Amino acid sequence: EEKKEEDSTDPYSKDPPRHPVYKINSLKPFNAEPPTGILTESYITPNDFFFKRNHLPVPDINPDQYKLVIEAPAATKGEKPLQLTLNDLKTKFPQHEITATLQCAGNRRSEMNAVKQVKGLDWGTAAISTARWAGVRLRDVLQHAGYTENTPNANHVQFEGLDCDITGTSYGASITFAHAMRKENDVLLAYEMNGQEIPRDHGFPLRVIVPGIVGARNVKWLGRIVVSEEESRSHWQQNDYKGFSPSVDWDTVDFTTSPAIQDLPIQSAITEPHPGQEVVPNSEGNLTLKGYAWSGGGREVVRVDVSLDGGKTWQVAELTGEKQKAGQAWAWKIWQLSVPMPSEAKELTILCKAVDSSYNVQPDTVAPIWNLRGVLSNAWHRVQVTVGAN
Amino acid sequence: EEKKEEDSTDPYSKDPPRHPVYKINSLKPFNAEPPTGILTESYITPNDFFFKRNHLPVPDINPDQYKLVIEAPAATKGEKPLQLTLNDLKTKFPQHEITATLQCAGNRRSEMNAVKQVKGLDWGTAAISTARWAGVRLRDVLQHAGYTENTPNANHVQFEGLDCDITGTSYGASITFAHAMRKENDVLLAYEMNGQEIPRDHGFPLRVIVPGIVGARNVKWLGRIVVSEEESRSHWQQNDYKGFSPSVDWDTVDFTTSPAIQDLPIQSAITEPHPGQEVVPNSEGNLTLKGYAWSGGGREVVRVDVSLDGGKTWQVAELTGEKQKAGQAWAWKIWQLSVPMPSEAKELTILCKAVDSSYNVQPDTVAPIWNLRGVLSNAWHRVQVTVGAN
Ligand SMILES: [Mo]
Ligand SMILES: [Mo]
Repeated sequence: EEKKEEDSTDPYSKDPPRHPVYKINSLKPFNAEPPTGILTESYITPNDFFFKRNHLPVPDINPDQYKLVIEAPAATKGEKPLQLTLNDLKTKFPQHEITATLQCAGNRRSEMNAVKQVKGLDWGTAAISTARWAGVRLRDVLQHAGYTENTPNANHVQFEGLDCDITGTSYGASITFAHAMRKENDVLLAYEMNGQEIPRDHGFPLRVIVPGIVGARNVKWLGRIVVSEEESRSHWQQNDYKGFSPSVDWDTVDFTTSPAIQDLPIQSAITEPHPGQEVVPNSEGNLTLKGYAWSGGGREVVRVDVSLDGGKTWQVAELTGEKQKAGQAWAWKIWQLSVPMPSEAKELTILCKAVDSSYNVQPDTVAPIWNLRGVLSNAWHRVQVTVGAN
Repeated sequence: EEKKEEDSTDPYSKDPPRHPVYKINSLKPFNAEPPTGILTESYITPNDFFFKRNHLPVPDINPDQYKLVIEAPAATKGEKPLQLTLNDLKTKFPQHEITATLQCAGNRRSEMNAVKQVKGLDWGTAAISTARWAGVRLRDVLQHAGYTENTPNANHVQFEGLDCDITGTSYGASITFAHAMRKENDVLLAYEMNGQEIPRDHGFPLRVIVPGIVGARNVKWLGRIVVSEEESRSHWQQNDYKGFSPSVDWDTVDFTTSPAIQDLPIQSAITEPHPGQEVVPNSEGNLTLKGYAWSGGGREVVRVDVSLDGGKTWQVAELTGEKQKAGQAWAWKIWQLSVPMPSEAKELTILCKAVDSSYNVQPDTVAPIWNLRGVLSNAWHRVQVTVGAN
């Protein structure tokens, strides 16, 4: 792991070391994805390779002094906020574990950039990863703090991170209160990622995990929870992470007209081979293709189709993944397909597209879903390769 | 309304009269859609124009003798089934009303047929309609019959219709027990449609309304409810209403490999102008376009984009519709757009595509979602018109 010198004037000087394998999209704040092929080497992404999407410097939190603050219900005027230590969280509530895939809203943004310039980090296809998360259910903590399904004006749950900019503004986002309170939604306050303390880059010591929902609402370094009538007023909830028509540009955009992204649409990508690779068929004349597929909202991936002829004909890939309950399919599927190499091909374009349990499909092309922030990029994935001698 | 002579050897001889406006796709069983333009003349589809999709003859039910049978939980061995009269349903349970759009899985099948022949009725774009439904919540009735969220082996709720074929096999379908028991899912046993007794063609005297879910599970002429470990064994649950890859044909299809369609994907269509129409711009040189947009699973339609140049540029349509709760957006939106007529156009192709609250989008083209049963046809809708003199 890389070493660096500390510079006390640099708010990023206390950021943790990172594995050198990452493709870095931004150093300060740190935003990086692993080489795409690593994603499908194992079903669970190792912590060292999980994509990193930070908006601000990584806060340096002493776990012994850490307290999560939960504001009291508005009706209990004067009631002090509930404060919970890490030990409180680990001992006062039942532990709950889920396997969940997180995806950045900007995953595959580079393909939108190729159509027309957008604003945002130039993510490839690896701003998505899967981990086993352990913690407590947010609903248990909210109930402990006095909230019930009938609490008046409880419409949203706002999360504030302990990461902040030089003006003191911290990262923030919200989900709906109904979503948070529904047990089957498995919303967690997680203190473990793949059996370890959550690494600093991923939100140590406590991160909200809202499975099925865009990464941006999975607030890291969670400091404070506010139940409110309105959504988070943060930049990221109000004026970022929203989708627009391709016709909307920075002169005409009105962020109040689109809903904040919450659960994400069906997605898939090819991880093997990689673009530009020279592929060589095996002794049987076959080529092995691999990738991931995932959908938001707990919808399960039910099929992945692959085409080698531009979408004229399709073959169904084999899917592997943990068995998950209907409506709680939080984790991706890895897909694989062995295909006969088309004869005499010198170049080959491989396409994939996935279908989820609501029979949502991916759109054919990028341009019609292009949007000025380059989010929600989920057209069929296309990888062009050259064919070597076998 | 048309008159017909009764023929006692014809199981369809007691079918009700129907409005002559319908485009009939099959007479016995009766399957028909209204002219598409009628759909967007009002937000609520009048009963006389609501699309009709019958699988079997319409049963002739005496409401005074009607009883709904609900099998007792398996654990209560020997317990008799619960039987409820219409009066029981109307007086023993709170009434609940919702506005919900129903769509046949085969809506827009004709566009798949145009790509390659499929098996099924050749529906145009009007196998979708919206009504106000009143009845009782299925969950209230299930709880009254002794079911709780902890009832063992209660995984599915099977519905049996009182319509049957000459062998006595009745129409049947199922939804998950969890879906049925969740209050917010608003699953109804409905006895009213737009303020009237449910018409015979729509399920008199009692129809299951599962908003957000394919028409095929909204069982008409409901006779019996069975809570079970497995899905309905009916033909329509097991070997019909499922999606497949375009590569699967009738020689290779294995119906066990795909899930039964439940909630439907994002959909939209143009209702004005109609295909082949000669359009004339108004005095300001504008053309008025109109259509519907809907998504399953309670997802709200958040945007409709319209293009007059094959998808190169898009304009955002104006949406109207009843305000519905987040996650409970059961009804469609009507969209409208006034566009300047492209100059010197002699022919015009109008495209529309919609986006739902999970930012699911429609696919660009039909062929890649083609499937042997012609279901789930939701590519961008295209209408070609000619331009008249203004
Ligand atoms: Mo993100
Ligand atoms: Mo249907």
